[in-house]
Amino acid sequence: MMQTMTSINHPADRLCKAIDTAGAPLCVGLDPVQEKMPQELQQFEALESFQFFCTGVIDAVAGVAAAVKFQSACFERLGAQGVALLGDLRQHASDEGLQIILDAKRGDIGISAAHYADAATVDGPCDWITVNPYLGIDGIEPFLDAGLGVFSLARTSNPSGNPIQAQQLQDGRTVAESIADVLATCGQKYQGQSGWSSLGAVVGATKAEEASALRNRMPHQIFLMPGIGAQGASPQDVACCLGEGHGALVTASRSVIYPVPKIDWQSDIAEAAKTLASELQSAMT
Amino acid sequence: MMQTMTSINHPADRLCKAIDTAGAPLCVGLDPVQEKMPQELQQFEALESFQFFCTGVIDAVAGVAAAVKFQSACFERLGAQGVALLGDLRQHASDEGLQIILDAKRGDIGISAAHYADAATVDGPCDWITVNPYLGIDGIEPFLDAGLGVFSLARTSNPSGNPIQAQQLQDGRTVAESIADVLATCGQKYQGQSGWSSLGAVVGATKAEEASALRNRMPHQIFLMPGIGAQGASPQDVACCLGEGHGALVTASRSVIYPVPKIDWQSDIAEAAKTLASELQSAMT
Repeated sequence: MMQTMTSINHPADRLCKAIDTAGAPLCVGLDPVQEKMPQELQQFEALESFQFFCTGVIDAVAGVAAAVKFQSACFERLGAQGVALLGDLRQHASDEGLQIILDAKRGDIGISAAHYADAATVDGPCDWITVNPYLGIDGIEPFLDAGLGVFSLARTSNPSGNPIQAQQLQDGRTVAESIADVLATCGQKYQGQSGWSSLGAVVGATKAEEASALRNRMPHQIFLMPGIGAQGASPQDVACCLGEGHGALVTASRSVIYPVPKIDWQSDIAEAAKTLASELQSAMT
Repeated sequence: MMQTMTSINHPADRLCKAIDTAGAPLCVGLDPVQEKMPQELQQFEALESFQFFCTGVIDAVAGVAAAVKFQSACFERLGAQGVALLGDLRQHASDEGLQIILDAKRGDIGISAAHYADAATVDGPCDWITVNPYLGIDGIEPFLDAGLGVFSLARTSNPSGNPIQAQQLQDGRTVAESIADVLATCGQKYQGQSGWSSLGAVVGATKAEEASALRNRMPHQIFLMPGIGAQGASPQDVACCLGEGHGALVTASRSVIYPVPKIDWQSDIAEAAKTLASELQSAMT
C-alpha cells in the first residue's frame, strides 16, 4: 500500500516524497500584491482579490510544484482578516497535495517561539516555517519540537546582509558559516528516514560559490533557495546543492506568479511553473 | 499650550515625552498566558480571558508606565481572532496615554518589511516595533520610513544567543558590537529634536558590562532592556544606560503582570509597577 503524504510524520521525509511526486524540487512563492495581479482581479476588494488570485495560483501549480511558500507579511498587511484568509489558503493548498511553507521569518525564544509554532497551525496547516537564527537554537528548537520543519536563515541574497553575514570571525569562518555549523549540529537530532533533517537552511541562489561551501558544512540540511528568476540566479547556480533532487527546494515567486501575459493568467502561471520545473530536472544529478 | 502626545510626530521624541510624563523609563510587557492569570479569569474562554486580563493590566499601569510592550506571539497563537484582539488592546492602551511597542521581532526585507510595517498599524496603533537585524538595514529602514520607531535586536540575554552574538570578529569586535555599529550609523538619519533616534536597540539587562560598551557605540539609540525581575537583573544593572532617563526603556513582564497575590490582582499589578518605577527613578542620574 502506498504511503500517503499526510501519513508521513517527519517534515523532511514528507517534503522529499512531495519532490519525488512532483518530479522537481520546485516551490512557488505566493507574495500577493494586488497591483501586480491580472487586470481582471483589480476590480475586487483586496481580500477578495487575494483569495481569487492565490486559489488560482495554487490550482495552476498543483501537481507541478512540490510546495508553496506563503509570504506572511502580504497577508498580515490586511490585518486579522488577512491572517484568517492565509489559514484558509494553506488548507486549500494542502488539500491539493502541496507542502506548505509559511515564510514568516519568526525569531523569538522559549515559550514565545512555542507560541509562534502554535500560531503557524491554528488557522490552517503548515509543514515548514522560516525562522531567524540571531537568537540561537532557543529560537529554533521549539518549532522543531512542535513537529514543524524549519528553514533557518543562513545566507541571504540581499546586499545589506553582507555587512553582517559575510563578516570574518577570528577562527576564519564567516558569520553565515558559523550559523551553518550551529544548524548542522542542532539538526542532527531531527533527521528523518530520508537522511535529511527537519532543520533546513535558507541560502540565496545568487551566492553560488558560498552555497557550495555551505552545502559541505550542512550535509543533512535541505536548502530553501530563493533568487531564481527575478533576482537573477539560474537553475545551474543551484545545481551544486540539489544532488539527486532532495538537497534543495528552489523557490520562485515573481517570475512564476506574475509571468508575461500570453494565453490567460492561470495557464501562463502553470506554463511558467512547468518550464522552471523542467529546468530544475535538468540540473539534478 | 502643552504639546499633546499624539501631536509629536517623531517616535523617539514621543517616547521621551511619555517617559517624562510617567516619571520613569518603565515599560510593562504584556505576555498573556491564561494558565498564569488570576484564578477568577481561568473560567473564561482564552480570548475573553486575554481581553479582561490585558485591559486590567493596561488600566493598572496607565500613568505609572511610559509604554506597554505586546508580545505578538501570545496573540497570534489564538489565530486571526487573537490578532484582531491585539489591535483593539493597542487602541485601548494608546487611548490611556501609553506608548505602544509591538514585540514582533519581524525580519524581512524591502517590500515585505514595508508590508510588516503596514501590518503593525492596520488593526490598531503602534509606536515602536521590535525587529531582527540579521538581514541588515534592508530589513530595518522600511519600518523607519513608515514612521515607526524600531528597536532592533542587538544583544539578547538568552544563553543560546552567545554562540552567535558574542563571537569575535577579525577586527576585534563581537558580532553584537558590529550590529551596534550598523544601527548607530543607520540611526543618524532618524534623530529627533530630543537627540535620540527612532532606531533603538534591544540590549539584555543581564549583560551589564556589555550594555555599557554598547552604550558607547550607540550614543543616540534608546535601549529597550528586558531582563529585570524574573530574569535576575536589577535596576542598578541598567543605570549605566539610563542617563537622565531617556537612554533606556526598561521592560518587565512576569514580575509585574504576575505578582505575588496580596490585595486584588489589579492593585497588586499597579503596586508592582510603582515599585519598579520608583527603583528606576533612583537609578537615573
